[in-house]
Amino acid sequence: MKAGYLFDKKVKKSLKIGKAAARLFNKKGYLETNMDHIAAAAKMSKGGVYHYFSSKDEILHFVLTNYMDLILGELEEELFKIEDDSSKIQFIISRHIDLYTNNLAEAKTLLHEAHCLPGKYYNSISSKQREYYRIVANVLSEFLGGEAKTDKAQVTSLTFLLFGMCNWIYSWYDPKGAISPENLSKMIWTVFLKGVCRGS
Amino acid sequence: MKAGYLFDKKVKKSLKIGKAAARLFNKKGYLETNMDHIAAAAKMSKGGVYHYFSSKDEILHFVLTNYMDLILGELEEELFKIEDDSSKIQFIISRHIDLYTNNLAEAKTLLHEAHCLPGKYYNSISSKQREYYRIVANVLSEFLGGEAKTDKAQVTSLTFLLFGMCNWIYSWYDPKGAISPENLSKMIWTVFLKGVCRGS
Repeated sequence: MKAGYLFDKKVKKSLKIGKAAARLFNKKGYLETNMDHIAAAAKMSKGGVYHYFSSKDEILHFVLTNYMDLILGELEEELFKIEDDSSKIQFIISRHIDLYTNNLAEAKTLLHEAHCLPGKYYNSISSKQREYYRIVANVLSEFLGGEAKTDKAQVTSLTFLLFGMCNWIYSWYDPKGAISPENLSKMIWTVFLKGVCRGS
Repeated sequence: MKAGYLFDKKVKKSLKIGKAAARLFNKKGYLETNMDHIAAAAKMSKGGVYHYFSSKDEILHFVLTNYMDLILGELEEELFKIEDDSSKIQFIISRHIDLYTNNLAEAKTLLHEAHCLPGKYYNSISSKQREYYRIVANVLSEFLGGEAKTDKAQVTSLTFLLFGMCNWIYSWYDPKGAISPENLSKMIWTVFLKGVCRGS
């Protein structure tokens, strides 16, 4: 019982530090943020932060691992339950936008600061990103008629064009603005599956 | 005659410094690049570089101003010559991808480092970006049926979804790979105007 309590406390504190750090990385940039800033933002002593993480790199790695695990978590199982391929694409887009808008600081940190990670940390994040790419590209390939009928370079390009629409929102989209995350998702999947519709 | 020669020399040298600097900003990051690095890359003395630019900020501003002027240069005049709205959209996409692939270092510097510019410099680049956005959004609004028939927030979103597909290519696209810039442009305008096509 006590071990469980200590474990929960450790997870909670680590997540609290991670959340504060992600906000700072996003606002100031990773290179300009130091452990003093992170401790102040997490309302802890610097020694307290070092109790949970041995370095700033480790915090960035923790933040990005958690975000990528959210993105990958049960994605394939959920897709398996959906029958038709265009519904799978809609599901992927809605889920991507939903995770992004609910984890803004972490999502933006992934896009802007992942390259600051040293080799071994970077590789672990990068392999999770490749796994996400693989899952989405497979769905698209099936949608387009299966592996035998589709050109690999074309599927790669289309997958990244879709990621482009979904990820570029960091530069312009305000989840509290005129377009709700649900409407944005709908707009993206409509463009992707049918193109822009006149008079719609 | 002599004044013209000196002017040409100044422009050529400035462009040479700008090109070398853009490559470094892109490779090392703006914050990690200093005037010594730029001078070495441009094969000039540091004093030589200071003859043309008083600071690193001024070089970044010069690089981004030139790139935005390329993007904006005669765009409206060219669009005016094209009759139908979907051809205008195709033209914008092809031109965007063409300028990007022919000016990779400058284009990536714009996407990644513009935020490093101090206020007055940043504002001048940002106002050129808004001008580009305005021109593209107007074409899209016309395509969708004119201002009276379209929702402003929808046009804004669609414009940025298009920019998303075009700009995100920095993260994956190799102009020397399997998909030529012409084919990439065609793929983007097909998705944007008609959606992904099964069996195409």
